[in-house]
Amino acid sequence: MPVPDAPVTGAHLEVPPPDGPDRPSRLDPEIAARLRRTPDGLVAAVVRQHDSGEVLMVAWMDDEALHRTLTTGRATYWSRSRREYWVKGATSGNHQYVRSVAIDCDGDAVLVSVDQVGAACHTGQRTCFSTELPVSSGEVAS
Amino acid sequence: MPVPDAPVTGAHLEVPPPDGPDRPSRLDPEIAARLRRTPDGLVAAVVRQHDSGEVLMVAWMDDEALHRTLTTGRATYWSRSRREYWVKGATSGNHQYVRSVAIDCDGDAVLVSVDQVGAACHTGQRTCFSTELPVSSGEVAS
Repeated sequence: MPVPDAPVTGAHLEVPPPDGPDRPSRLDPEIAARLRRTPDGLVAAVVRQHDSGEVLMVAWMDDEALHRTLTTGRATYWSRSRREYWVKGATSGNHQYVRSVAIDCDGDAVLVSVDQVGAACHTGQRTCFSTELPVSSGEVAS
Repeated sequence: MPVPDAPVTGAHLEVPPPDGPDRPSRLDPEIAARLRRTPDGLVAAVVRQHDSGEVLMVAWMDDEALHRTLTTGRATYWSRSRREYWVKGATSGNHQYVRSVAIDCDGDAVLVSVDQVGAACHTGQRTCFSTELPVSSGEVAS
């Protein structure tokens, strides 16, 4: 019986490496090496309107979502709840055309500058950050 | 031997509730109930300069860090690497005075508007997002 001289396709990816992505990815290994991920393999993606600078939303990317965002011109995320990739605007029509992407100093977040069509928020509002929390400074830190 | 009629202080916090914070917190329970945390109990905190809107950094907050940020006027985070709270500027002098805090629609991120003294980044640069990644749109999404 012949012995295969290479692993079955994908089999070597079943156990992800420590600190590596959970899922197979085509992301440039040099960029992947810079990422510092959450325990579920994600970095935070802060999305802003490229010209006004308005912060529109935060979503999550694994390595492959970042790869698709960098190479397709369309912002692509990983849904933590549905556990699948989603291209912003694919169902809503509220597309995000990627203008630039920056990574932060410690590799746990990216800043995605986009041209946002319509509302960024699924509620229909322009931005997801429309609920203010009460701020006071009357309590001394302990 | 007497049987205590109440748990030893703190003992009931040793096993955190599912989807709850890892550490004891004084955060308003109504706000805590809105949070949707990473597997290690954190939400992303996007920090911007309150007047220019410039995105300065992303850090992480557990419930107690958010409580301190809302009540002390000083941006306070949870360090994933050191596993401790840190008040921005406490050692560097680059303080972040909190002007407002907004929470996003699904509770996994907060937008903290601050008055940033000096550099936000530990490298000495104003913002942590100073490294651009290459963006192209020549590859078709698969």
